[in-house]
Amino acid sequence: MERLTLDVNGAFDPAAGGLARADLDALAAPARAAFDGFEARRRAGEVGFADLPADAAAAEASRALAAELGRRFENLLVLGIGGSSLGGRAVLGALCHPFHNLLPQDRRGGLRVFFPDNSDPATFAALLDTVDLERTCFATVTKSGGTAETMSQHMVLRERVVARFGEEGYRERCVLVTDPQRGVLRQIAADERLRALPLGASIGGRFSVLSPVGLLPAAAAGVDTAALLAGAAELEARCRSGAVLENPALLYAAVLHLLDVRRGRRLHVLMPYADALRDLGDWFVQLWAESLGKNPGTGPTPIRAVGATDQHSSLQLMMEGPHDKVVTLVRVAEPRAELTIPLPAGYARHPDLAYLGGHTMGELLEAERRATGAALRKNGRPTISIELPRLEPRTVGQLLMFLELATAYAGGLYGVNAFDQPGVEAGKRYAQGLLGRPGYEKYRDELLGAPAADPALVLG
Amino acid sequence: MERLTLDVNGAFDPAAGGLARADLDALAAPARAAFDGFEARRRAGEVGFADLPADAAAAEASRALAAELGRRFENLLVLGIGGSSLGGRAVLGALCHPFHNLLPQDRRGGLRVFFPDNSDPATFAALLDTVDLERTCFATVTKSGGTAETMSQHMVLRERVVARFGEEGYRERCVLVTDPQRGVLRQIAADERLRALPLGASIGGRFSVLSPVGLLPAAAAGVDTAALLAGAAELEARCRSGAVLENPALLYAAVLHLLDVRRGRRLHVLMPYADALRDLGDWFVQLWAESLGKNPGTGPTPIRAVGATDQHSSLQLMMEGPHDKVVTLVRVAEPRAELTIPLPAGYARHPDLAYLGGHTMGELLEAERRATGAALRKNGRPTISIELPRLEPRTVGQLLMFLELATAYAGGLYGVNAFDQPGVEAGKRYAQGLLGRPGYEKYRDELLGAPAADPALVLG
Repeated sequence: MERLTLDVNGAFDPAAGGLARADLDALAAPARAAFDGFEARRRAGEVGFADLPADAAAAEASRALAAELGRRFENLLVLGIGGSSLGGRAVLGALCHPFHNLLPQDRRGGLRVFFPDNSDPATFAALLDTVDLERTCFATVTKSGGTAETMSQHMVLRERVVARFGEEGYRERCVLVTDPQRGVLRQIAADERLRALPLGASIGGRFSVLSPVGLLPAAAAGVDTAALLAGAAELEARCRSGAVLENPALLYAAVLHLLDVRRGRRLHVLMPYADALRDLGDWFVQLWAESLGKNPGTGPTPIRAVGATDQHSSLQLMMEGPHDKVVTLVRVAEPRAELTIPLPAGYARHPDLAYLGGHTMGELLEAERRATGAALRKNGRPTISIELPRLEPRTVGQLLMFLELATAYAGGLYGVNAFDQPGVEAGKRYAQGLLGRPGYEKYRDELLGAPAADPALVLG
Repeated sequence: MERLTLDVNGAFDPAAGGLARADLDALAAPARAAFDGFEARRRAGEVGFADLPADAAAAEASRALAAELGRRFENLLVLGIGGSSLGGRAVLGALCHPFHNLLPQDRRGGLRVFFPDNSDPATFAALLDTVDLERTCFATVTKSGGTAETMSQHMVLRERVVARFGEEGYRERCVLVTDPQRGVLRQIAADERLRALPLGASIGGRFSVLSPVGLLPAAAAGVDTAALLAGAAELEARCRSGAVLENPALLYAAVLHLLDVRRGRRLHVLMPYADALRDLGDWFVQLWAESLGKNPGTGPTPIRAVGATDQHSSLQLMMEGPHDKVVTLVRVAEPRAELTIPLPAGYARHPDLAYLGGHTMGELLEAERRATGAALRKNGRPTISIELPRLEPRTVGQLLMFLELATAYAGGLYGVNAFDQPGVEAGKRYAQGLLGRPGYEKYRDELLGAPAADPALVLG
């Protein structure tokens, strides 16, 4: 069975301070309401992410453009931040060779892809200093077109590319992903006659991984995006019931919500035992945090960990610290045979090492996952288990859709709008005020009018 | 002034739900006791990290070995996990070119360095498939010698290297960092006549960044480790007072502790506005979590963020979610001139973009940092500010020592031993039981004897 499996037994373990079945029964009606509320918004065309796998034309447009860029260039710079970057990173991290950008072209099967997702000039200068601009294209990804970090990078690259390769060279190298109906980048696309892929109004940035935002870099790097979308569609098809025990994403949302509100487990750790899912963890952090963290004071805190690595970092805190965490352990069941790596028996006379001989590195990783889960539960900490049969586009598509749907349902359970982010506007206005944007003087003045600092509280 | 500056005014802002000065006054005696307690353990030789910058011989040994490896090889694989990896990663991330491993040798100024810090066979197989083994050396870093993840990698590499290059080739390629007095790796060093750098008994893994654990990879990558240590020594010299307003690391620990226990700010976010400090954030997470997360139920949860990137991820939650977080914003004051990157004025007719023209990318980043801090405080969220004059070995050394000392003092304030990690042992025993280690059968039986899962709670 090439299907994602969810097992929430570890969240109902009495030894782990887990839930009672009665808690879940009592949530049946709210869970159904959350499901119905999401489906109503979906039918109304307000929220579109769950329908992306069915949009074959959009997927084909991303693939075709990626193929065209791939014939001509070596490097793709994805100029985007937050939801315009994290989805692409997650897919490439999960499905490309771990050292993709280091491989020679014939072993890579796609463009090298870089995500300079910050306005840090050190990174951007170093990147421009590293790639051969002649062999480099870039995708500017922002729904509104007004994202300062992204557009500042676009402005810099545009100037340099036009200076070296002319307007035509710029048009060859630059593609856009933006809202087709409104926003400054749509105007720029028209003015400068640039190719643009559409990001529909009903697709929020953090739910855009299966839109051109994620598909273009994935296809450019050589990922089978059709299989990715097929997996997402399979998972979506398993989530058409409002009965909590018949819809895996609804069950996941319900259990995490209950552990928060009934058991004080307000920190939700996602801990895949696979390096390849590290970036997908960062994608989940944005998805869960930005969707559920809303006024007044609502929202669990998602945390990304990686097993076995973080057994040597935050596990001590998870194990003995406050009873405020639930850990979702993700297993990849079958590493490909060529990756199992047998461990030699060369240190048989050392008891601290002899037991490793004859196993494989994959068996060690799996033993650590099982052991960590058991130790957490025995120590009063609930766990949840997600299992993928293997890491391939189809299963990764399932996992992405699973987490997106769970987030949408959790919005209903927490009673918040999972699809806006009003809290980040104040900071943007202050920044624009500081940079002298006309009409924003009052924000600058408000910021600069803050009370004077007490010098005794500054140690320099 | 090339000095780290700490400003805690944002933690005392009434609008931010901050502390009162009386809170700090009341902590004067406990803070002094925490300082005295740490100094006593230091004098007793139990805790040695603060004295590492003065150990010129150890530093020179790391430099000399790195230079020797650098003359012969192209790649260094650091086989280590947790504290045996995070410190080296933090230093390289902060001080090397962001695309160090992609650069050609003449532009790199050092070896390419890889940190495969997991027992994930997919990563390790891909790494061995990417580097030229002929041109690759490796450092096996484990204090006890019994770390399963690290030693499994060592066993695999040893077998392959001996098969291809013979015993002598193995001795040329492999160096060890381990406890010089005890442990299986010390025995292996003797048996196999391998070069080994010492990791003293008083240096715990998460406090080892300024020992050969961090210095060897840093020097191998071309970092000026002497300046790194000089910076750490400077900071340590500023922390010789038990008066909370005279010792920056003590003030930082005190304010974070007070915000937790007096104001419920139990999540401690470290948010540098510099991509280069991303990995240092991961290092801090281990340091703070593993040191302070102790029975019974003690310990704040550290979280790593990066500005401005995570303004588009977790900021929404920080801004509107539960009042349980304090954010430390880290500023790098002066990006080097060649990195500032002027923003062209090409989009002057678009109000959403025109205000960016004429600024630099560094100014945008700094405006975002100031704006985010102000918005957080205005919304009732305390902040702390750390400023480095620039990113260079001396200031990074200051920051590392600052955070290490703050952690040590915080252990005293929380009333826990900051230098052990007893909570991770249970999981290791279970894993060893599962893998058939003689004498560990009871742990395997305990794990396998767990209650049967309820199939209704598994959706597959």
